[in-house]
Amino acid sequence: MPQTDTTSPVIDFIFDFGSPNAYLAWKVLPGICRRTGATLNLIPCLLGGIFKATNNRSPVEAFGEVKNKLAYEALETRRFVAKHGLAAYRANPHFPVNTLLIMRGLIAARRMGVAAAYLAAVEAAMWETGQKMDDPEVVAGVLGSAGLDAQAILAATQDPGVKAELIANTEAAVARGVFGIPTFFVGSEMFFGKDRLDQVEEAAREARTASA
Amino acid sequence: MPQTDTTSPVIDFIFDFGSPNAYLAWKVLPGICRRTGATLNLIPCLLGGIFKATNNRSPVEAFGEVKNKLAYEALETRRFVAKHGLAAYRANPHFPVNTLLIMRGLIAARRMGVAAAYLAAVEAAMWETGQKMDDPEVVAGVLGSAGLDAQAILAATQDPGVKAELIANTEAAVARGVFGIPTFFVGSEMFFGKDRLDQVEEAAREARTASA
Repeated sequence: MPQTDTTSPVIDFIFDFGSPNAYLAWKVLPGICRRTGATLNLIPCLLGGIFKATNNRSPVEAFGEVKNKLAYEALETRRFVAKHGLAAYRANPHFPVNTLLIMRGLIAARRMGVAAAYLAAVEAAMWETGQKMDDPEVVAGVLGSAGLDAQAILAATQDPGVKAELIANTEAAVARGVFGIPTFFVGSEMFFGKDRLDQVEEAAREARTASA
Repeated sequence: MPQTDTTSPVIDFIFDFGSPNAYLAWKVLPGICRRTGATLNLIPCLLGGIFKATNNRSPVEAFGEVKNKLAYEALETRRFVAKHGLAAYRANPHFPVNTLLIMRGLIAARRMGVAAAYLAAVEAAMWETGQKMDDPEVVAGVLGSAGLDAQAILAATQDPGVKAELIANTEAAVARGVFGIPTFFVGSEMFFGKDRLDQVEEAAREARTASA
């Protein structure tokens, strides 16, 4: 849903609910958009599909056997949470959660015009209240509690067009150079990881200046 | 060589000549020290020893099979080089270079009071002129050209005390939580990677403020 116009830079956000760092970035990006005048273009992709296409793995898998490394990553998460005041963040006890259903649901929710409410409800369920969001009954409960039409959204996840859009987004991201999530683009400039949001903000500011 | 006093924060720099990112950080750290009043405490360690102790690997080894990942790392290196005006930087064609000799040489050079000249000469040979610095004859030539007593330094690399200091530094770093290079500490706060130098600068500034 980019509200593109000739003067507003766009930040593409390669997104999957399964990434805690994508949640953390998603909380910080509105402030970056406000300060730079940028528009956020969230692009739903399957992290599992990106990993398969690039032969990549999650940090937990890649570094699980490396002493000190995951403890440091956890420290950087705590620093990020403290710096940005994201006290509601909690690791999901069911991690890793298979996100195929809720990612298809995001595309379905967009088509129904309820993407913002869906995003907020599912991100909170994943990374604030730690629910098992690969269980359709749990998902239905979360959507219902948020006032969304859970049955209609879950039915639409089986729409071939919805499924195809998610696959196409994922393939296009890999073709652009993506290997993980969260990844950001400002124009053709790619940035990987929540720790590079300062660079994203700078690039968005420069893009606005260049077009002004 | 920390010039510690009661008011100046210290930035510990876990260092090995074999890391291109350590070279890049080493070029940027003097500005951080100037701006924050911090003192740089370069701690020579063996990256190979850190990897062995933590079961870690170099990015080239860990991500060599991951599509897009190393291309992105190279992009971030180009951005860092451009941002900080480090035009002299060149990848070393002999990478990876075994740094055991030149790291022992750094400790030897310190004991002789010529660490600054040694560091500058060896970093330039590694990451500006691309020399094969695990060849003792090449090392001798580089040190001689810099006006250093190559024979004395190379002889001192065989001193059991020099060897033991390098091992002790490496073990102490791992015990502090290190898993790679470059790593920085401001007090007990650890930061990994050249991309976190902004955080290092902020921590150094805060440390000075807190003690003032």
